[in-house]
Amino acid sequence: MEFTVLKTCGNARFGLLKGTHGVTETPCFMPVGTLGAVKGLTWKQILQMGYHLVLSNVYHLYLRPGLEVIEAAGGIHSFTGWSELILTDSGGFQVFSLGKLMRITEEGVEFRSHIDGSKHFFTPEFVVEFEERIGVDIGMVLDECTPYPATYEYAKHSMERTVRWAERSINARTTEKTALFGIVQGGVYEDLRLRCVELLTRLPFDGYAIGGLSVGEPKEDMYRITALIAPELPADKPRYLMGVGTPLDIVTAVESGVDMFDCVMPTRNARNGTLFTSRGKVNIKAAKYKRDFTPLDPDCDCYTCRNFTKAYLRHLYVSGEINAVILNTIHNIHYYGRLMKRIRESIKNGTLNSLKSELAAIYG
Amino acid sequence: MEFTVLKTCGNARFGLLKGTHGVTETPCFMPVGTLGAVKGLTWKQILQMGYHLVLSNVYHLYLRPGLEVIEAAGGIHSFTGWSELILTDSGGFQVFSLGKLMRITEEGVEFRSHIDGSKHFFTPEFVVEFEERIGVDIGMVLDECTPYPATYEYAKHSMERTVRWAERSINARTTEKTALFGIVQGGVYEDLRLRCVELLTRLPFDGYAIGGLSVGEPKEDMYRITALIAPELPADKPRYLMGVGTPLDIVTAVESGVDMFDCVMPTRNARNGTLFTSRGKVNIKAAKYKRDFTPLDPDCDCYTCRNFTKAYLRHLYVSGEINAVILNTIHNIHYYGRLMKRIRESIKNGTLNSLKSELAAIYG
Repeated sequence: MEFTVLKTCGNARFGLLKGTHGVTETPCFMPVGTLGAVKGLTWKQILQMGYHLVLSNVYHLYLRPGLEVIEAAGGIHSFTGWSELILTDSGGFQVFSLGKLMRITEEGVEFRSHIDGSKHFFTPEFVVEFEERIGVDIGMVLDECTPYPATYEYAKHSMERTVRWAERSINARTTEKTALFGIVQGGVYEDLRLRCVELLTRLPFDGYAIGGLSVGEPKEDMYRITALIAPELPADKPRYLMGVGTPLDIVTAVESGVDMFDCVMPTRNARNGTLFTSRGKVNIKAAKYKRDFTPLDPDCDCYTCRNFTKAYLRHLYVSGEINAVILNTIHNIHYYGRLMKRIRESIKNGTLNSLKSELAAIYG
Repeated sequence: MEFTVLKTCGNARFGLLKGTHGVTETPCFMPVGTLGAVKGLTWKQILQMGYHLVLSNVYHLYLRPGLEVIEAAGGIHSFTGWSELILTDSGGFQVFSLGKLMRITEEGVEFRSHIDGSKHFFTPEFVVEFEERIGVDIGMVLDECTPYPATYEYAKHSMERTVRWAERSINARTTEKTALFGIVQGGVYEDLRLRCVELLTRLPFDGYAIGGLSVGEPKEDMYRITALIAPELPADKPRYLMGVGTPLDIVTAVESGVDMFDCVMPTRNARNGTLFTSRGKVNIKAAKYKRDFTPLDPDCDCYTCRNFTKAYLRHLYVSGEINAVILNTIHNIHYYGRLMKRIRESIKNGTLNSLKSELAAIYG
């Protein structure tokens, strides 16, 4: 993997990230394709919207279709038909969300499948092996995602284990074809976060993620920890803020020096009828759109906005038509793609601050 | 509306049907867009597959979004964003399927909405008015769809009412922009069917449909009635076999002289994981496809077959991903589009019989 920062604007960076299967400009947003598909979109549509990097999930792919099937297919790219960059989260976040169905030990994490209740065990070594064997471009290490709220003692313990697991992950690597990213934990405690950065950056990761945010903590905490941590991460490596976020969250984190994002928000909100527009959020099921024959977003040039009205989108949504999911997702993922493009342009032009003000006015 | 037969092959006809919003070659299949959308596909994809005529449904559009909304949008084309030909079924078939929620009188049919139980009344005149006001290219009259089985007396009574309603429908017309098709009923009774043709063809319809088939009767009855009736219908007008059918049903009816078809089968089967291929039906959820890394149909050039394997399609299906619906529907609707194209070519080339043998060998 190669990462080059081409331009900066304060802490914000415009860059290029090259992996085994392609290249993406940064800052970038990764559409979420948990099971090897971005719900509602074809790869062709995703490429047309300018995306070259998508996210998938080890936990989900491990359960369905399973390592053996993906390997037999010749890897995750052949299996899914997506030929550009793929990053996989370890699925630690999903496993830790299983609550009573999960038990953490120093060795790893034991869990029961959310599908059939079968018992499984993930170690940091296995996650790296899985990612290498399915051939992802970027693999995330298995970490312990500290919940919110967590006591200082719990967060410290959890951060230290994350560091030990990170070291085991590095030692488990067998190829450079799959880049490996470490994950900074430490909850909302600044000294724990800084200590975690100090320890992880001694290890030769290809990039670093900030994990354990956007898990229920106040926005100010998320902004504060991101602003503190991002600039401390190695300047020559990509920085990834996991699971974030709203357009305003993203531009704020970019200002702090973050390069990569993922979030279920644009896809999940699309399925719930909540759409991001240049005039703020639109809840398409609202009765006021019944006879609104204007486009969803007059400033948007996506397929949905060029061809359909709010009244039609509302009709599809309230009628439970699958096409509501398709057209809404096209719009939201196009919106996020265009947002990232505008962010990159504004870093190049030194106008990131005015873009942030615009988004704050819309969504603040 | 203009209809021209350009070539025949036995009773089969290759033709051109021109309506207010476009032109389609015949024999043609109409994808079903009950609520003003073909489930799982964008209009762009439908056009790319070569379709220029889709079907929608008065009953469903009347309930949602309602006449007033569609009219305020400027008609069904502006409302849905589909700019080519639209035919609407009256929804009589759907209303008569409501059973106890429905009551037929000479005046029309009273029914309760399947959505909220509210009471409504359709007359033949209202259906024509609705179709004209929303601006469809072809409107179907309100008919009484005779169920199967039905006694001779019932079928006779029902056919006669259908004829009286057809006459009222013709009298209710106010514009030629919306073509109007009559519907032949009469159950599986040949003399009733022939009598219905005799009576209906005295009325100046733009085309004629064969209704009340594919409602549970044996295939032989469907083939027998179609083979008897289609050639009796006016040679210079399009003939439409409603709700039919499988690839073999379609080619068989084309041989009898039918020009137009609609059926939920390709879209509904796609959602249930049943796919039409050059080697017969594929049930994509079968365990045997878990590690089948070949295309669904090696002879198909649709987006799904060019880019994905059976193993991936199975994975999406068993995981409940919406993308299973999308990719499966792309394939099935592409398959039907290509089938109709091959039927048209084979009429031009005089090889319809060998195409029928091929389909009989695959599906028979």
